[in-house]
Amino acid sequence: MEKRRKMLKAAIVGATGIVGQQFIVALHNHPWIKVTSLAASERSAGRTYREALTDAKSGAFRWSCDEPPSPEAMELPVQNAHEMEPSGVDIVFSAVESDQAQILEPKFAVTTPVISTASAFRYEKDVPILIPGINSEQAGLLKQQRKARGWKGFITPIPNCTTTGLAITLKPIYDAFGIRMVLMTSLQALSGAGRSPGVIGLDILDNVIPFIANEEEKVQRETQKILGALTGESIKPAQFLVSCTCTRVNVREGHTESVFVSTERHCEPEDVARAMQEFAGLKVSLPSAPKQMIVVRSDPFRPQPRLDRDTDDGMATVVGRIRRDTALENGIKYVLVSHNTKMGAARGAVLVAELLINDGYIS
Amino acid sequence: MEKRRKMLKAAIVGATGIVGQQFIVALHNHPWIKVTSLAASERSAGRTYREALTDAKSGAFRWSCDEPPSPEAMELPVQNAHEMEPSGVDIVFSAVESDQAQILEPKFAVTTPVISTASAFRYEKDVPILIPGINSEQAGLLKQQRKARGWKGFITPIPNCTTTGLAITLKPIYDAFGIRMVLMTSLQALSGAGRSPGVIGLDILDNVIPFIANEEEKVQRETQKILGALTGESIKPAQFLVSCTCTRVNVREGHTESVFVSTERHCEPEDVARAMQEFAGLKVSLPSAPKQMIVVRSDPFRPQPRLDRDTDDGMATVVGRIRRDTALENGIKYVLVSHNTKMGAARGAVLVAELLINDGYIS
Amino acid sequence: MEKRRKMLKAAIVGATGIVGQQFIVALHNHPWIKVTSLAASERSAGRTYREALTDAKSGAFRWSCDEPPSPEAMELPVQNAHEMEPSGVDIVFSAVESDQAQILEPKFAVTTPVISTASAFRYEKDVPILIPGINSEQAGLLKQQRKARGWKGFITPIPNCTTTGLAITLKPIYDAFGIRMVLMTSLQALSGAGRSPGVIGLDILDNVIPFIANEEEKVQRETQKILGALTGESIKPAQFLVSCTCTRVNVREGHTESVFVSTERHCEPEDVARAMQEFAGLKVSLPSAPKQMIVVRSDPFRPQPRLDRDTDDGMATVVGRIRRDTALENGIKYVLVSHNTKMGAARGAVLVAELLINDGYIS
Amino acid sequence: MEKRRKMLKAAIVGATGIVGQQFIVALHNHPWIKVTSLAASERSAGRTYREALTDAKSGAFRWSCDEPPSPEAMELPVQNAHEMEPSGVDIVFSAVESDQAQILEPKFAVTTPVISTASAFRYEKDVPILIPGINSEQAGLLKQQRKARGWKGFITPIPNCTTTGLAITLKPIYDAFGIRMVLMTSLQALSGAGRSPGVIGLDILDNVIPFIANEEEKVQRETQKILGALTGESIKPAQFLVSCTCTRVNVREGHTESVFVSTERHCEPEDVARAMQEFAGLKVSLPSAPKQMIVVRSDPFRPQPRLDRDTDDGMATVVGRIRRDTALENGIKYVLVSHNTKMGAARGAVLVAELLINDGYIS
Repeated sequence: MEKRRKMLKAAIVGATGIVGQQFIVALHNHPWIKVTSLAASERSAGRTYREALTDAKSGAFRWSCDEPPSPEAMELPVQNAHEMEPSGVDIVFSAVESDQAQILEPKFAVTTPVISTASAFRYEKDVPILIPGINSEQAGLLKQQRKARGWKGFITPIPNCTTTGLAITLKPIYDAFGIRMVLMTSLQALSGAGRSPGVIGLDILDNVIPFIANEEEKVQRETQKILGALTGESIKPAQFLVSCTCTRVNVREGHTESVFVSTERHCEPEDVARAMQEFAGLKVSLPSAPKQMIVVRSDPFRPQPRLDRDTDDGMATVVGRIRRDTALENGIKYVLVSHNTKMGAARGAVLVAELLINDGYIS
Repeated sequence: MEKRRKMLKAAIVGATGIVGQQFIVALHNHPWIKVTSLAASERSAGRTYREALTDAKSGAFRWSCDEPPSPEAMELPVQNAHEMEPSGVDIVFSAVESDQAQILEPKFAVTTPVISTASAFRYEKDVPILIPGINSEQAGLLKQQRKARGWKGFITPIPNCTTTGLAITLKPIYDAFGIRMVLMTSLQALSGAGRSPGVIGLDILDNVIPFIANEEEKVQRETQKILGALTGESIKPAQFLVSCTCTRVNVREGHTESVFVSTERHCEPEDVARAMQEFAGLKVSLPSAPKQMIVVRSDPFRPQPRLDRDTDDGMATVVGRIRRDTALENGIKYVLVSHNTKMGAARGAVLVAELLINDGYIS
Repeated sequence: MEKRRKMLKAAIVGATGIVGQQFIVALHNHPWIKVTSLAASERSAGRTYREALTDAKSGAFRWSCDEPPSPEAMELPVQNAHEMEPSGVDIVFSAVESDQAQILEPKFAVTTPVISTASAFRYEKDVPILIPGINSEQAGLLKQQRKARGWKGFITPIPNCTTTGLAITLKPIYDAFGIRMVLMTSLQALSGAGRSPGVIGLDILDNVIPFIANEEEKVQRETQKILGALTGESIKPAQFLVSCTCTRVNVREGHTESVFVSTERHCEPEDVARAMQEFAGLKVSLPSAPKQMIVVRSDPFRPQPRLDRDTDDGMATVVGRIRRDTALENGIKYVLVSHNTKMGAARGAVLVAELLINDGYIS
Repeated sequence: MEKRRKMLKAAIVGATGIVGQQFIVALHNHPWIKVTSLAASERSAGRTYREALTDAKSGAFRWSCDEPPSPEAMELPVQNAHEMEPSGVDIVFSAVESDQAQILEPKFAVTTPVISTASAFRYEKDVPILIPGINSEQAGLLKQQRKARGWKGFITPIPNCTTTGLAITLKPIYDAFGIRMVLMTSLQALSGAGRSPGVIGLDILDNVIPFIANEEEKVQRETQKILGALTGESIKPAQFLVSCTCTRVNVREGHTESVFVSTERHCEPEDVARAMQEFAGLKVSLPSAPKQMIVVRSDPFRPQPRLDRDTDDGMATVVGRIRRDTALENGIKYVLVSHNTKMGAARGAVLVAELLINDGYIS
């Protein structure tokens, strides 16, 4: 890390929202990247970040992260995202909703790399969905994208937060034993739904909500793409089948997933545990990378979202209850916890930026 | 129902616990059965039921049901379960823990039918696990049991509360399309864990606990036995494979289960919905029976435990999100909610008693 | 009740919101009142009530009450509230927000009595804030209001839901011993905040929110007005001092209030318990009235919102922990639970309608 | 801090319980104190700390703190508390229940200073209840205690966790304006109730419990003693009146208190805010001391337990909503949040140890 000479300048678009705030936190004191521009909706434009977050009427300060906002960010001016000039920064982190992303991100990408938490471009042929250490090599597709679209920049989205932990934990199994089929039920945290309107307390107290619109389709498709193979100008999705049911539970942060896998080749639970524990996808040292991508616990009562979500600052995926599945052929089942607003959102996007800086895609 | 001439007398053993209290509620104003005896541990013996539930020091009244206790029960004396004489009643409802059930239930069964919520005898060869309308015909095994053990009574346990909703919803699928394989993830309510010590608020707030000791084995084994075939002197378990992961979520009552099924014969989601909706397992009218055993909802956000658990007084199983599973062969997936302390516990046991009275096993 | 000859026709304005839905439930099978008109915002106008509650995109049914909607209401057409003609009904129940109430309610009152859950008119000189049995005689002010404003109808709002339980429990103390001062801290339920946006699950999980905008001022002012004296053309507020702190806790329904009272004349806790228990403010029998306005519990762990909110269908106020306060002069302290969306909202407004029908103000 | 030469040796008695675990965390890498002995009940004796915390049957690790246990503590042997020889350590931290404290603490105090979280000795004449910075001078009473009881050590308990935040925030008011009267309603966290059995999830979900046995008496008495004056051989309690109502809410950590104060001399809310903000009770620098004992927030929605409990590592008391009370003479009201298991328990006790080491009472 000592070799870095120049600090890169970054803009956060959608800076006042919950994911935008997480970018502020994730980039606080970052050794390679400095936030120099903030953009949001027209309503916030022309105010400082502090003012934009303060409710004029009640005086309430609308901050959603556990960590406090960095003092320097508080005094930055907020621009109208539709009027922002991206050429003044080296990276744009986009934290806007998908419909806005559809409009804004291609405009920014003309001059500047865009790393996005939105789903708008995830399924396009020349767009990789990167998880450093899992499919770092798919970054190669960005050259193709730049060429095809005539952009100096590019758009690279991170996965849906529910895909992240699943794809990470499947990777060592896929490499070692092959995968035929994955069936997953998620128990997702409230923070994944954001705040506008998010999940109402009345609806989730003493309850489970068994449906999250479009979530299952995203997870199924993204998992296959992330574990797919970069072949020439596109990614050939992994050929295993994925089916999931996504539910919402009364947990603040940390998605829990109950996973059943049928592998190609026979393996014992201890083989899977070892493959996960020893998995070292990331070959380089990056500032936001976890020490271990997957932490395996033997206590049968783990992982629990409250106890395990913050493992390695929310960047590790924690796995437990690895055991034989008694129904599927070569069946293995396990439970994972992944921090949906850290590795699964802003910090995960910052990790992508670090990989792309390291590999020369951003400079 | 009008043909009943004589009220049957019932004892509740384990009357002061949470399930015992549910029996008090389930039998309040019952048209066929009257509670005449209560038994509990030595500590409660010699006090009225009201006294046994009142904390002498703080004056707190230890009552766990939403419905109030019936006034007549409050004044009944509580006996020491180990000294109770079962011949004075026509039915014993047993709500004790499994280790106590192992000792007490065979003593009672010498003279008197025992319907139990404990797991102690569920897996014995001559013991059926009854769900009226799902495997009513397995009651025939009780004759065998009486003969083999030389008892005038018998022991018949109800299933684990997590098995109940699963077995009920699988039954119409099994009958219509055959089943190869079932994979299930449960999101279970706190009340299933009881109160001694139950789940501590500290542990479940903002959390999911991904393990419930012995639960998965019970569900797997019981589902196969319940959907099995009575052949001569025993039950041949259904031959499909079952695998599950059982978790605890911060919900008071109502187990939610995410189910993936591979059927023998191809079927569409609407076929499954119709088979469930039209399912009428119970051929007779019983006081505690739900109007429909399975209620199917088309709203994608249902079933939810808080909104659906009390359907038909907690005796119906509510199903939603029936759709094609994209991984399994002939795959179907759905979500169910079942009331774990009503159909899944005391009221379910009372329903068994009603079936056995109706069919002449208890008189 | 048998003397009623004609069913009165009622409109519900704001019918699609959470309070509007509660009116649908509260008036289901009502012996005196029939809902014949529904009105809401322009967006819902021209659709049936069922259609207006169904999300076109997801198919979700937006219903917030525990009780199901009445089937006949489901097929009623919804009108635009701003175009509704009130003269076709005998009563308007208004469940709109205060800014809308300011505009709509005077229009309706020209021809028709309006009973409102909104605060818009509560503090006007010629407007009583009625709680039947507590200040029924203040209904006399409505004649004054009709005359002064030249209306055939009138506007009569119910109190803020946090005021209701406080005013009810203070009334027997005030009558028997006089009151100098009241200090109250509320622990309010989520349902009081409604759904647009209401309280986000993320914000209230594992948390308390110590502020509810404008709530404390309302409770202080309304309590004095309700317990005041009708003198000629206005109400002279009760002269005791009231101070409160209002907080939000993670409870669905049922406001809990910790009350400290300094009385004029010395009294013992048992005197207060007796005065509350024997309090029979309502001299007439009304369909929605609780059997007892105040239920006193001796168990020190009561009242609890989950266990006590539904006492007498949510129409009784439940009090416990009545004891000597060791700081105030003639100090008494207690805890109350009041159902904020039943007695404190729609059903409370229906009870007001019943009183006014009985007393000849509505016909 | 640099002047310390020798590390003091400490024992933790009751080491396996929730408060004992907090001591392990609070003393991890402590600059002055090293944990050298652990004691617990007979059941744990003879095992390492790791073994004592691991459930033999399920393999579950019973650890209750957010922070992980220190690796060195894990390998320490656990002794039977009744057989522990205290003379081998310089300080005993006692985290046992009150009935055990009654027996054990005087035995230890014969040779060794005991700092206790138990209430057993709090109300004895020669025992101070210390909060460093609030009543540091009351440590003088320990000399008296040693002399009167013939001990080389002493017993000094910390206050009840609900007293701590109240006494801290009253201190600057008391010093600047005098206090006549305090009325307080607490909304207490689950962790205050511990784990044996603690508060059952079933009981607190969607609920408030309005009673905590003996809590109110403790808070009233301790607050007066802590703010009292050391006069010769005893403490003259402060003469103001205190009355409180203590409730339990569904929050993990962090007690919220709604406080109403009547002061002797008139003061404005901004005077109180300034007195609190500027309050600097602690004249010396101690390792566990917060930067500011009281943090005042102007956002009306603060303090909230989830957002504010960890301020300054859980050692600061956070105050908001300071405003005029409209009922009491010279009335002021505010809301506070205090971390009940950090400043209010083990870390608070460690802070007392630091004060007593600094002032020469322990060496």
